[in-house]
Amino acid sequence: VSDPLVISVDAMGGDHGPSVIVPGVAEAAAAGGSGKVRFLLHGDGQAIEAALARAPAAREFCEVRHTPLVIPMDAKPGHAMRRGKGTSMWNAIESVQSGEASAALSAGNTGALMAISRLLLRMVGGLERPALVANWPTAAGVTSVLDAGANVVCDADRLVEFAIMGAAYHRAVHGVPRPTVGVLNVGTEHDKGHDEVRGADRMLREQQFELAYHGFVEGDDIAKGTVDVVVTDGFTGNIALKTAEGLARFFRAELRRTLTGDPLARTGALIASGALRKMSARLDPSAVNGGPFLGLMGVVVKSHGGADARGVANAVRLAATLAAGGFVAEIAAHLGGRSGASGRSDTERSVA
Amino acid sequence: VSDPLVISVDAMGGDHGPSVIVPGVAEAAAAGGSGKVRFLLHGDGQAIEAALARAPAAREFCEVRHTPLVIPMDAKPGHAMRRGKGTSMWNAIESVQSGEASAALSAGNTGALMAISRLLLRMVGGLERPALVANWPTAAGVTSVLDAGANVVCDADRLVEFAIMGAAYHRAVHGVPRPTVGVLNVGTEHDKGHDEVRGADRMLREQQFELAYHGFVEGDDIAKGTVDVVVTDGFTGNIALKTAEGLARFFRAELRRTLTGDPLARTGALIASGALRKMSARLDPSAVNGGPFLGLMGVVVKSHGGADARGVANAVRLAATLAAGGFVAEIAAHLGGRSGASGRSDTERSVA
Repeated sequence: VSDPLVISVDAMGGDHGPSVIVPGVAEAAAAGGSGKVRFLLHGDGQAIEAALARAPAAREFCEVRHTPLVIPMDAKPGHAMRRGKGTSMWNAIESVQSGEASAALSAGNTGALMAISRLLLRMVGGLERPALVANWPTAAGVTSVLDAGANVVCDADRLVEFAIMGAAYHRAVHGVPRPTVGVLNVGTEHDKGHDEVRGADRMLREQQFELAYHGFVEGDDIAKGTVDVVVTDGFTGNIALKTAEGLARFFRAELRRTLTGDPLARTGALIASGALRKMSARLDPSAVNGGPFLGLMGVVVKSHGGADARGVANAVRLAATLAAGGFVAEIAAHLGGRSGASGRSDTERSVA
Repeated sequence: VSDPLVISVDAMGGDHGPSVIVPGVAEAAAAGGSGKVRFLLHGDGQAIEAALARAPAAREFCEVRHTPLVIPMDAKPGHAMRRGKGTSMWNAIESVQSGEASAALSAGNTGALMAISRLLLRMVGGLERPALVANWPTAAGVTSVLDAGANVVCDADRLVEFAIMGAAYHRAVHGVPRPTVGVLNVGTEHDKGHDEVRGADRMLREQQFELAYHGFVEGDDIAKGTVDVVVTDGFTGNIALKTAEGLARFFRAELRRTLTGDPLARTGALIASGALRKMSARLDPSAVNGGPFLGLMGVVVKSHGGADARGVANAVRLAATLAAGGFVAEIAAHLGGRSGASGRSDTERSVA
């Protein structure tokens, strides 16, 4: 790992490519100040240079790594893994693999990013696939929800791994020493739900991990901020997240329609515009942009494909925080502790 | 089935019991007018009479059926089924079983309501458990989402049954001749998701039912109103629904805080109050209150435990619509058609 911190960026991913990624990097670099973080920008050299020309202050923090190849947004993960060598996404992750960079960031194809990260960086301990975290703004702050879609089918052991990794992540990013963790379910009693969540609940209650296990939580506990970390399988997590995104867009559209609908409403909105703008900033999805993959032997952060420059800047800051914090080593230690602990307790039980 | 329409009501269920259920029935009776619907109110006679004394116009449409017994909101379904005889909920459903009423309504314990309904009314065809529908307000109108929590684990056949029943329900209530149906998934390509959704997608594409099959939909398609009916297992459906409820409450609280936060905001809100009130009415959850159980040999509607009188009135109207429409017979016919069709096609295949 290099010093100063180096972040490797796939400049071609997302809905807008370098025209949003580069200003986002520039915003993060300006906010970070004093040249502490450097960036490798992978992708089409000409397009990146054109974007850098409009953000000259960022120039000195950035090194352009040209490649003409990109992974299409609709590529299959398997195909991307077999044929992705030399693309901007591949090269961004390869810079982490080689030790040249401490974290990689991409707004590209999520499945491809997961597959290539797993191939090049490998998984911690006995894990099979990384888990994707969604940062969810709540009444109490931010809740970390995982898995947001990388693991469609999850058994109880997998959910316990999510709990351990999610707590380590939340601690690293939000500085909470013992984050509270809940398992998402259709009710809070121990006998509710299917075998997978009941098994995870049992393990988390019986074993001591570096987290405060709360028990089951329900869907409405996410927005309430009942716990710091919400654990669920990637199918349910993806659907809950996208359902919420859809509803948030619906509410914003309804509010806009309401406040522009007639002259009286427009006048009222104008007078209240200061407060409305503050609310809009508070609820801005770009403030919580950046979903890290947990369980990799390296830091990889996914930026939302539709994020604006401010969103990209937030994802860059998240990548820098995780890379600086020794977070991967912490996850490896905690998951190691888990296998040891469960082995020990089995022995104790068979002796007793 | 009696004429005029008789609706049997568990007056004791929900967070507020007769003090909200009875005014809700009164509101529905007043809106319906002309004495076409009659009500049997099951529960504590004294409490019901006290509530009726405050809604004298409803008195002539209502008959009180006293019982001192109730099913607690936290009772286990199995226990409620074995020990529930003679309670207000049991008696409300028994009135449908005996043919005295055409529909039952309760705001009580959902699991108990499902278990007792299944025991007393039995299921259509070879179905195992009823499915609970959530009516979801969208940009395009209302989407019917099922299962909202009755079936935690669902195989592909079960999801196909939900599609057929959901389409029949949507047609009965919203008058759409061939409702569009989507299966909720983490992506829209045919190879996305787990075996259960892929199997259901294949069957729905290959076989002709009385519905317009759209394919997979994602979480954000619910609020968009991409399809009329969204099909999912009860685990995912319950979590998506409660996540959305939590987010809706969060948004309402944020908006209230914003518009009362400082004098300028309060002034603006006052001027825009007409438009804001209209928005609030448009998004009022009580407007879509009332989740029917589909697949029973009778109409049973669950009212949200926290619904107000207006919400109860809407659930009553829904029960009346379903009871009047010959909806149970339609579901039986469609599900019969399905078994027949799949049997035929097996034979054809083995002959060919």
